[in-house]
Amino acid sequence: MDGSINFTPILEQVLDEVRPLTLQGKVANYIPELGHVDRNKLGIALYLPDGGTYTAGDAHERFSIQSISKVFTLIMAYRKLGDSLWQRVGREPSGNPFNSLIQLETDQGIPRNPFINAGALVVTDVLCSQYVNPHLAILEFIRQISGVEDINFNPRVARSEAQHGFRNAAMANFIKSFGNLKSPVENVLETYFRQCSIEMSCAELVSAAQLLVHYGTALGVSEALLTPSEVRRVASIMLTCGTYDAAGDFAFRIGLPAKSGVGGGILAVVPGRMALCVWSPALDAHGNSLAGSRALELFSGRTGFSIF
Amino acid sequence: MDGSINFTPILEQVLDEVRPLTLQGKVANYIPELGHVDRNKLGIALYLPDGGTYTAGDAHERFSIQSISKVFTLIMAYRKLGDSLWQRVGREPSGNPFNSLIQLETDQGIPRNPFINAGALVVTDVLCSQYVNPHLAILEFIRQISGVEDINFNPRVARSEAQHGFRNAAMANFIKSFGNLKSPVENVLETYFRQCSIEMSCAELVSAAQLLVHYGTALGVSEALLTPSEVRRVASIMLTCGTYDAAGDFAFRIGLPAKSGVGGGILAVVPGRMALCVWSPALDAHGNSLAGSRALELFSGRTGFSIF
Amino acid sequence: MDGSINFTPILEQVLDEVRPLTLQGKVANYIPELGHVDRNKLGIALYLPDGGTYTAGDAHERFSIQSISKVFTLIMAYRKLGDSLWQRVGREPSGNPFNSLIQLETDQGIPRNPFINAGALVVTDVLCSQYVNPHLAILEFIRQISGVEDINFNPRVARSEAQHGFRNAAMANFIKSFGNLKSPVENVLETYFRQCSIEMSCAELVSAAQLLVHYGTALGVSEALLTPSEVRRVASIMLTCGTYDAAGDFAFRIGLPAKSGVGGGILAVVPGRMALCVWSPALDAHGNSLAGSRALELFSGRTGFSIF
Amino acid sequence: MDGSINFTPILEQVLDEVRPLTLQGKVANYIPELGHVDRNKLGIALYLPDGGTYTAGDAHERFSIQSISKVFTLIMAYRKLGDSLWQRVGREPSGNPFNSLIQLETDQGIPRNPFINAGALVVTDVLCSQYVNPHLAILEFIRQISGVEDINFNPRVARSEAQHGFRNAAMANFIKSFGNLKSPVENVLETYFRQCSIEMSCAELVSAAQLLVHYGTALGVSEALLTPSEVRRVASIMLTCGTYDAAGDFAFRIGLPAKSGVGGGILAVVPGRMALCVWSPALDAHGNSLAGSRALELFSGRTGFSIF
Repeated sequence: MDGSINFTPILEQVLDEVRPLTLQGKVANYIPELGHVDRNKLGIALYLPDGGTYTAGDAHERFSIQSISKVFTLIMAYRKLGDSLWQRVGREPSGNPFNSLIQLETDQGIPRNPFINAGALVVTDVLCSQYVNPHLAILEFIRQISGVEDINFNPRVARSEAQHGFRNAAMANFIKSFGNLKSPVENVLETYFRQCSIEMSCAELVSAAQLLVHYGTALGVSEALLTPSEVRRVASIMLTCGTYDAAGDFAFRIGLPAKSGVGGGILAVVPGRMALCVWSPALDAHGNSLAGSRALELFSGRTGFSIF
Repeated sequence: MDGSINFTPILEQVLDEVRPLTLQGKVANYIPELGHVDRNKLGIALYLPDGGTYTAGDAHERFSIQSISKVFTLIMAYRKLGDSLWQRVGREPSGNPFNSLIQLETDQGIPRNPFINAGALVVTDVLCSQYVNPHLAILEFIRQISGVEDINFNPRVARSEAQHGFRNAAMANFIKSFGNLKSPVENVLETYFRQCSIEMSCAELVSAAQLLVHYGTALGVSEALLTPSEVRRVASIMLTCGTYDAAGDFAFRIGLPAKSGVGGGILAVVPGRMALCVWSPALDAHGNSLAGSRALELFSGRTGFSIF
Repeated sequence: MDGSINFTPILEQVLDEVRPLTLQGKVANYIPELGHVDRNKLGIALYLPDGGTYTAGDAHERFSIQSISKVFTLIMAYRKLGDSLWQRVGREPSGNPFNSLIQLETDQGIPRNPFINAGALVVTDVLCSQYVNPHLAILEFIRQISGVEDINFNPRVARSEAQHGFRNAAMANFIKSFGNLKSPVENVLETYFRQCSIEMSCAELVSAAQLLVHYGTALGVSEALLTPSEVRRVASIMLTCGTYDAAGDFAFRIGLPAKSGVGGGILAVVPGRMALCVWSPALDAHGNSLAGSRALELFSGRTGFSIF
Repeated sequence: MDGSINFTPILEQVLDEVRPLTLQGKVANYIPELGHVDRNKLGIALYLPDGGTYTAGDAHERFSIQSISKVFTLIMAYRKLGDSLWQRVGREPSGNPFNSLIQLETDQGIPRNPFINAGALVVTDVLCSQYVNPHLAILEFIRQISGVEDINFNPRVARSEAQHGFRNAAMANFIKSFGNLKSPVENVLETYFRQCSIEMSCAELVSAAQLLVHYGTALGVSEALLTPSEVRRVASIMLTCGTYDAAGDFAFRIGLPAKSGVGGGILAVVPGRMALCVWSPALDAHGNSLAGSRALELFSGRTGFSIF
């Protein structure tokens, strides 16, 4: 299947079919700001290297990207440290809920992968060591690779995360006790809560993901930011670890490397072939967008973009 | 990269480069029969849909396929039960060593996936319910899809496994205590130990794997044995769960769906594109062939067969 | 409080108060033979070194002693091996349900204590190494120390345990895989299921417990079977490990070293001071007799026999 | 054995025998202030209700009481909440190292017992709810029951604990995430670090322990602070949970309810009979004073104060 097809009707058809699912599941409400989001929101955007961007539904409305930010901070840290990054965070699926402290204890403070919260905190700590203002560096990087200048934090969301972030504070302190956080716990947490509060639309997320689609070359950036091999490795971690403890099921049903966030967004990328982002706020029991997962499954089944 | 290339020199080059690694690692010796295998053995075979089979080294010498048999029994059980199979075994990476009983306790007797021992025992139990002589049915199926009539069990290996198989016996009894084994524990174990003792060569394994390369159509079998969608799903489980608790690292470094066995074989498959089998008896700490893993990594890096 | 008091009215009063609790809880029914027991049964027997034996209710009716047998096999193995026994089984509370395999994996096949099933299997294995007919040796020992010649196994219960004993079979095989069972798994399990099926009355159990009350000297046996120090040690294990994962609560509420069984019996012993046995078949969530626990608590509170 | 004996020679004899052990083990050094303590220090003090106080060695030199403070805060919280305290903290041995987060996750933020760090944090949180200046209230309580006016915190130790207390901070945040801390995490931690830094001598600790020896009546306090039943319950928790994950072994070898601290002190109490405190800074692998444990064992073996 190639770029000469008009994908807009396919995307619209997919949205129509999954719309009833937006009534099921649960909008994340551990902080009030997320709980207020309208569960009827539903958007999708597709980027193809030779066909441009297709959108449907609320594809241009911004939402809290939450854990999708972990893809961007991983790329930033990977660029800075190269493969020595893997001395501080693993690349294995965790087999446990995303905020589990159990494995961290067994593994002596080395998180299983960069997409569980523990691993993302270590990645953020790397950025805290590399940048004077790490949260601004993250924002600038995302603005640069997406080509959208007014992407920003939501300070109320960031503050609210900080006020309710006892589990993340526990994790950061625990990792620190093993010596695997270098910056003060408070700084790492503050940066982390800010990166999670960034708001982007589906269309903006697939723009940013061009960096992975084009094997390391971002939109409007002259030099390559990652090598093709590094891009493949990021994609492999998305496939095996990107959707919490449902990654195996995601690979099985959908067959696309993807990263989800509790804001209801899911960003899927196949290097060389496509980026796809879907948004629907209500979540399944694993914390992945319910309608969004199904949309990805329908799209993948119909278009043959599965990597398998 | 396509089938018009002669891949034999590439395979030979890869073997030459990894040969020093055959001196490292540890040949499995939990049963004497496996421990006696010559650690210098090294073979590789490649099947391409439009280019036939290429081999190098000891590609035609048979070895104990061990856990690679789990791919074949999974296919057989999946054919029989369809997606209802997943009520009895999961599809998630385990995040724990391959013989762990811990998750089994937490998960009430439902193994995480069909490629850890616990899951393979449940799959074998399905076959025990479906066939009068399940071990013969397994053998016949492998003979059929590979087109090799004299593939057989190694009865000494099977007997030795039974004599030292206390961990598997523990697991089978434990699963039975949760009601997730239907046949008598002894029958399931006997069938399981036999399937693990089957001996095949790299060349024979890629022949058998044509079933997956051709999206469900086996060598010399008229009807499709699996649907393309089912083949993709088997491949996704191989990618996320096929190499014990190193599956994430395997996906990261190699990018190929694969299943390894403690006999030192690794079978990798990309549906529609290729099957690759490598054999070198010495294992790394995770139980995967050390030189074999590196051979897959070199081959994948040079040929672009990675799925990412 | 001393032996010149007539304790019979106190025992009767305690039974009257706890009788309503016999309607609550659940009679063990994992094997049919246990499930058929009348939940209205309620008996108690007290032995005092200077006052003889007092009984009330169904104190002379036999029931399945089940895990109370672990006290007797522990004494037998301790006599044979002395403190080298503790190389094969620990003396720490497990903090987990009584049939957990998790700690066994972490602890490399060394069970936490002799009163969880895993530990009792190791203790029984010790007896299998020491006696040609270990089950007969156990029976003979219990007959000897209690002075009751016709105590016996219930073969139907033993057979039924064997038919439903997958969890115990899992544990025995698991321990064997770590090398901490010396005899064949089948022999150990058969002996274990038989010892659990022994039937005794409350009165007979306090007779047998004289061995502990008199610091090692059993009823009608001339030589000392244990040293006073060994008796204290058995009592300490009863206190910290004798009532599954409710041992801390038992010590807190009752303050008596005790061992319970799923047949509804609980045997409590304070060396030098008393032995007390209560029987009521319905169990609480931890597997301890519900009315029996409360009877011990009332008795302990009123008489000052608590060790604290 | 009664109070008319002069126990001083026995204590001196015990110290002489265990003195060689002070060269083994490891002085706690996770904070510099503890690491500087002289490992040759060795003291013991005994209080008997009818015989007064006996001392030997460095019994009058103060040391960091660390976790022994948990006994005093438990008594304070128990007085305030009564048995409703047990809704927020359990009474079961943990079966895991003293700072484990694993069980906390399984048990939804309810620590197993008040003597592991997690449980002590909850107890301290109770005091934070009850007192405006909880750390001063704790100090005042200890001064009152020991009758020593100049007992005090060591502010350098408290500050150092705070600077290195990431594991405790992780635990406090984790418990807070389950809703089982009411006060701000910072306040609870600050109070906790202060209470651990209190310095007392062996002689002062047995003075304070008179409260437990006399079943609730403290030195020079007219009203009873606990009921006899509450005192027994505190003692039972000391026995089953007071020495980290070696409590079973402690009960087995020593047979005395006891609470140890990483400062090298161990306080043992038998209500109605005695209080014994020993101090030697070097610790065994479980975090209990090595020479101190052995001293308790020798003393218990020779005097018959074991509760079993």
